[in-house]
Amino acid sequence: MSVQKIQIFDTTLRDGEQVPGCKLNMDEKLIIANQLELLGVDVIEAGFPVSSPGDFEAVRAIARQTKTATVCGLTRAVENDIRVAADALKGAVRPRIHTGIGTSELHVKYKLRTSQENVIERALAAVKLAKSFVEDVEFYAEDAGRTDNEFLARVCEEVIKAGATVLNIPDTTGYCLPEEYGAKIKYLVENVKGIDRVTLSTHCHNDLGLATANSIAGVINGARQIECTINGVGERAGNTALEEVVMILRQHPYLNLDTNINTKLLTLTSAMVSDMMRMPVQANKAIVGANAFSHSSGIHQDGVIKHRETYEIIDPKEVGVSDSSIVLTARSGRAALAYRLQKLGYTFDKNTLDKAYASFLQLADQKKEVVDTDLHEIVEQENLVAAS
Amino acid sequence: MSVQKIQIFDTTLRDGEQVPGCKLNMDEKLIIANQLELLGVDVIEAGFPVSSPGDFEAVRAIARQTKTATVCGLTRAVENDIRVAADALKGAVRPRIHTGIGTSELHVKYKLRTSQENVIERALAAVKLAKSFVEDVEFYAEDAGRTDNEFLARVCEEVIKAGATVLNIPDTTGYCLPEEYGAKIKYLVENVKGIDRVTLSTHCHNDLGLATANSIAGVINGARQIECTINGVGERAGNTALEEVVMILRQHPYLNLDTNINTKLLTLTSAMVSDMMRMPVQANKAIVGANAFSHSSGIHQDGVIKHRETYEIIDPKEVGVSDSSIVLTARSGRAALAYRLQKLGYTFDKNTLDKAYASFLQLADQKKEVVDTDLHEIVEQENLVAAS
Repeated sequence: MSVQKIQIFDTTLRDGEQVPGCKLNMDEKLIIANQLELLGVDVIEAGFPVSSPGDFEAVRAIARQTKTATVCGLTRAVENDIRVAADALKGAVRPRIHTGIGTSELHVKYKLRTSQENVIERALAAVKLAKSFVEDVEFYAEDAGRTDNEFLARVCEEVIKAGATVLNIPDTTGYCLPEEYGAKIKYLVENVKGIDRVTLSTHCHNDLGLATANSIAGVINGARQIECTINGVGERAGNTALEEVVMILRQHPYLNLDTNINTKLLTLTSAMVSDMMRMPVQANKAIVGANAFSHSSGIHQDGVIKHRETYEIIDPKEVGVSDSSIVLTARSGRAALAYRLQKLGYTFDKNTLDKAYASFLQLADQKKEVVDTDLHEIVEQENLVAAS
Repeated sequence: MSVQKIQIFDTTLRDGEQVPGCKLNMDEKLIIANQLELLGVDVIEAGFPVSSPGDFEAVRAIARQTKTATVCGLTRAVENDIRVAADALKGAVRPRIHTGIGTSELHVKYKLRTSQENVIERALAAVKLAKSFVEDVEFYAEDAGRTDNEFLARVCEEVIKAGATVLNIPDTTGYCLPEEYGAKIKYLVENVKGIDRVTLSTHCHNDLGLATANSIAGVINGARQIECTINGVGERAGNTALEEVVMILRQHPYLNLDTNINTKLLTLTSAMVSDMMRMPVQANKAIVGANAFSHSSGIHQDGVIKHRETYEIIDPKEVGVSDSSIVLTARSGRAALAYRLQKLGYTFDKNTLDKAYASFLQLADQKKEVVDTDLHEIVEQENLVAAS
């Protein structure tokens, strides 16, 4: 089976930027958009043009700056939203309008206060209007995760007929389990007429910590686009983290799915977005957290020193990190201490190392981390002599 | 089908505490252990007694303090480790020794530099020795995630015969996909003689962002214990986050799986661990992040105001948060502005609200967040008059 391409649709500048405290200015948005293009994303969702004049201008500027990626603007299934988005996207080489409406019972009944038939009518009108401006029209069925599959399939079939090129199946509230979400995508692949002419897209939220797993279940079952953000930023618990889905596909070649991402730029891109959005990434974040490649327990350190792959599945260089770091703490074993001492120029015999280790443990029980100067001091104080 | 209990095995004080910079002092460990017991965890892994004198003392003190939960100490399959752990656990009401050895080809060949037969011998010796001290012996097959299922089943069968009560199947490097990990658990349930006499346990790492999904796949396929940490702290990208797996089971009652956790204490426990370990939780962290229940986009705010469940699957009160917050930014719509103004005592007619909204958007394009004093100023400057 040949490797199939999964399109990466980055919504850091739209779903990511709508987070409290994350607002970016125009320069920052242009820098991030440029970085996303370097990173190799296929689609940049640049904003929600009708939402504010600042957002409109940002989408317009990103559309003009971007050289090869598709630039996308979000709209509701509302005429003015779509006209404004089309206007903002005018300068784009590859413009896409992203329009849609809620399809779950909760959304139809409580938010839209209307009927399923009316939802379909509004969806069709929106797609047709968008299609009059651009060739590439993506439709989102909001809260698809909680939408009855039969009705969802009907909506999909109708919007394909109206000209939609991409169908986005959002798990808006982050409720689905991977099995459920995968089954939903499978149902659509098997039951929607014309589905082979369009791209199915995942858009998952992380309210229960499952956004990444759900997106992967989606592409295993036939979706060919993943909507995601750098560092998983986004409303509430955030969106699918780009760096996680990309590395999962890269690390599981037997899935025969891959992306166009240059993974060596992941760490830099993560740091840039985190800084500009003032959204710190926690140390224990997968792929891009400060500790992602740190080993501190003695058992693990010993293993990594003997053979990197015993505890590391990703070579840190692949994501742009120069080296996995060994941090010495009270949990570190003799092997890690010997390794670090050797890097500092000390090679001890077993007895001397035992002495060094005892002093080290005493210090490590008091301090959080033992650094190189501490080790030099131990060697000096204990008068340890290197093996010849 | 009746609801089955999933045991929550918390390893915040062992796998969590071995993270660079997270070292706790004795008082902090006792406070966290007490909080974990209040939270309702079934097992507290209190440390790795042989690793340092400080760790030994901590396990001993936690063993004495804990009233009902099982207290567990980690060991390698090494005689001295097990003797020291047994010693540390002496005062516990329900002591458990957790011993084990690497079983994957990589671990057997490169880390242990031995044969599969020798690994089984060492596993048996360790379990038997542990069993001579305590009734409850948990065995871990390190790197089980990358261990051939047939060999893994053989190891499991042997250690059950030797007296193991719990079998821990760690995905040590965080490599598995949920389907794979679930299938591995299913294979063991179906192929290991005596498996019905013991508890199968998941222990997943988050290197690819899949720890939570893998743990859930594990219990769906027959595991009955989840090893996890508060906030997902742990080596590298961390362990399975306790708060996520607990809330997934609570939110999907049709799985017929539940825990003994008092979810109303999740937020407080998270904050306590984060503070004491100096490990900030990112804002977009599921369940316990600062933004987990914040809505800032206009579309979402409008939905939540009309009917909470349109965008929220969890009532924030269930996890100990007093209210979901509405933050006003440039992405906020009229509905959110009107809602906030009303809370401040202003009820405007449509035209006046339009005027307020225009001023609000202008301000919001410049500021990250618009706060109440800004709204009072807008009302004053624009001379807006409340509807009668």
